[in-house]
Amino acid sequence: MTNPKDVTPAGGASRAWILDNLSELVTCVSADPESVRRGVAVGVADGRVAAIAALPELRSRLPDAPVLDGAGGVLTPGFVDSHSHAVFGAYRAHEFGLRTRGVPYMEIARRGGGIVASVRHVRALSEDALVELTLPRLSECLRYGTTTLEVKSGYGLTVADELKMLRAIRRLDRAQPVDLVPTFLGAHAVPPEYRERRDRYVELVIQEMIPAVAAGGLARFCDVFLEPGVFDREEARRILEAGMAHGLAPKLHADELENSGGAELAAELGAVSADHLGAISEAGIQALAGSSTVATLLPATLLLLGRRTYAPARRLADAGATLALATDFNPGSSPAPGLPLILTLACSQMGLDPLEAVVAATRGGAQALRLEDGRGTITAGAPADLVLWRVPDHREIPYHVGVNRVSTVWKRGTPVVSG
Amino acid sequence: MTNPKDVTPAGGASRAWILDNLSELVTCVSADPESVRRGVAVGVADGRVAAIAALPELRSRLPDAPVLDGAGGVLTPGFVDSHSHAVFGAYRAHEFGLRTRGVPYMEIARRGGGIVASVRHVRALSEDALVELTLPRLSECLRYGTTTLEVKSGYGLTVADELKMLRAIRRLDRAQPVDLVPTFLGAHAVPPEYRERRDRYVELVIQEMIPAVAAGGLARFCDVFLEPGVFDREEARRILEAGMAHGLAPKLHADELENSGGAELAAELGAVSADHLGAISEAGIQALAGSSTVATLLPATLLLLGRRTYAPARRLADAGATLALATDFNPGSSPAPGLPLILTLACSQMGLDPLEAVVAATRGGAQALRLEDGRGTITAGAPADLVLWRVPDHREIPYHVGVNRVSTVWKRGTPVVSG
Repeated sequence: MTNPKDVTPAGGASRAWILDNLSELVTCVSADPESVRRGVAVGVADGRVAAIAALPELRSRLPDAPVLDGAGGVLTPGFVDSHSHAVFGAYRAHEFGLRTRGVPYMEIARRGGGIVASVRHVRALSEDALVELTLPRLSECLRYGTTTLEVKSGYGLTVADELKMLRAIRRLDRAQPVDLVPTFLGAHAVPPEYRERRDRYVELVIQEMIPAVAAGGLARFCDVFLEPGVFDREEARRILEAGMAHGLAPKLHADELENSGGAELAAELGAVSADHLGAISEAGIQALAGSSTVATLLPATLLLLGRRTYAPARRLADAGATLALATDFNPGSSPAPGLPLILTLACSQMGLDPLEAVVAATRGGAQALRLEDGRGTITAGAPADLVLWRVPDHREIPYHVGVNRVSTVWKRGTPVVSG
Repeated sequence: MTNPKDVTPAGGASRAWILDNLSELVTCVSADPESVRRGVAVGVADGRVAAIAALPELRSRLPDAPVLDGAGGVLTPGFVDSHSHAVFGAYRAHEFGLRTRGVPYMEIARRGGGIVASVRHVRALSEDALVELTLPRLSECLRYGTTTLEVKSGYGLTVADELKMLRAIRRLDRAQPVDLVPTFLGAHAVPPEYRERRDRYVELVIQEMIPAVAAGGLARFCDVFLEPGVFDREEARRILEAGMAHGLAPKLHADELENSGGAELAAELGAVSADHLGAISEAGIQALAGSSTVATLLPATLLLLGRRTYAPARRLADAGATLALATDFNPGSSPAPGLPLILTLACSQMGLDPLEAVVAATRGGAQALRLEDGRGTITAGAPADLVLWRVPDHREIPYHVGVNRVSTVWKRGTPVVSG
């Protein structure tokens, strides 16, 4: 398959089409009801949205464009999944079995499981092997409607292995339709060989990894796992500031299971996003609400870890924070490639309404990745990354739980999944 | 497609095959580790499991049988989903939207939503229309690994409309591969026209509906929704006893949201199953543990209703109760056609281990439907209702959340889904 991302506008000048017979077109410009348009079609030209209008108007603007049948479905932007660890060696289902028997995550980690197990896997694999293993996972993301995906390093934890992961992400971006946005996460865990000298590991991240990643142009963001037992607030601050000095915008794993003032730190540093937030404080909510830092919520992780409480999405939204919903797709706590289930959890367990959830997984995701080309919306000029759903009402996207209702996915105007 | 259920053993005498190259074959005879067999293949003949053995032995027993490649996947019995309301008119996604805004279910019901809305839909539809609307839903169940499905009436609530639903179920059973097991649920709700004279409705169920259903051979079970505000304990007892007198074995919606002593009543009556049990008491647990009544757990419903507590599966299992896991597939609280998500919830939220969950959705389901032909197990003589999973370890069946890992489904030895 030709990768639609490789087609230049000049080469695709005549490739225009119109999609009609939609029950709803959800622009995702905001979570207000006017984002749900009825009685309109969409025109696409040169891989971008040309216009949203009634069919006769589009026909006159794009006279040679074929008219495709939306079959009464709902059209949304492709999902922008802003938090994943999709490059890894192997799933860790046996840990899931242990957790169901009540073995705590920290005990599993002590037995050599958890992030450190994935580090062993990735270190043992070549860049080629990582690319090969990850490709089918990305097709799966695409089949569930994701057209842009952030992917983090963080299972290498040596200079060479972190660079290997980031190079694999770059190759994967070119090899298939989903746009990949790379994040450097050398501070995902202190690797076993540095356990007794963690300061040296922080120095390695700051002095060697960050400069090498930046010099290679291998990442857009720098992220840290701030959590008791992983990295502390001052370590996180130093690493993120070092990243910023090298042009890597900060992101932060914050307040996942315990409160560490992570949300406040993210807001103070002007981070692009603060992610997880299962244990965010009221002060943290206010800090995010008063900042441009996106609150990125990852409910599948908490579900799979057996938690029964989720991040306070409703309070964050009501306070005025910008929300993103993402999968946290990873081989341990969230083997979830698709956003539809995340939306179900956001609505049924976190009090978002279906439109808020759809917007958080599209425009919210784009904001959490500072993509400013209209991504995550259906607006004139935005990339035509579109998903047609086999449902008559956008509320059915989160409502149909555990089943895939994606009919067709377009990347830059080219169909890449057909139902 | 020829319906494999229509093929008589005589007609298919030569149709034998062997499936080899399995990482695991899960017999589901029990939740003990010996149910997970490695290094074996399965032989199928005449739509039934002929033997489980090493490949050379099977080759000598079935010399003309082709050997199919399991591709290193896991083989389980097809799911036996023992609780559904799969015949309905329309999804009720707008109610899901209202619930996310905090409108309680009982308020939605007062506004004309809930079960009564589905009753309006079903009464307005012909038997033909019900068949047509339900067929694609059953394909979806099949694609997620369900090969036997219980389906309840209960959206008709007049003699004619209940019989219409049950006739539709009978036609649907013959029209596609999933075996349907019909349950009469005239006591699903008191219909609006009887609101001020509920005793008359109970009499209608007992005096007219049950005899008509039994005379037509249209159901195997009689079920009642016992819950405050729906039917009470004495009404449930009278209706179930009337059903028993007509040869309909009892099932009971028990202790879903509030405790009503439903589990105790089910055990006392020797019911086939007590279903839901989100609010079961310790006495109820003991009653089920000391009986042959299967505890049928439906966690998707509680998830979708926004609850954060589930039935006490671990305590029920440890006390010795037989567990079944089912979807409760219905247009309101559980639009979930597939069991994989149910298994994920059972493991991550209810403390079952992956093997217990798989057994509860196969053999447990068969027990909750009193199917005694080996259904829900892979044992010599059992119907060859089989699912090949695209995973190397049965623990990955519940672990891969929100994504379909079914590769191939066989019904009575015939492939009906191919991945």
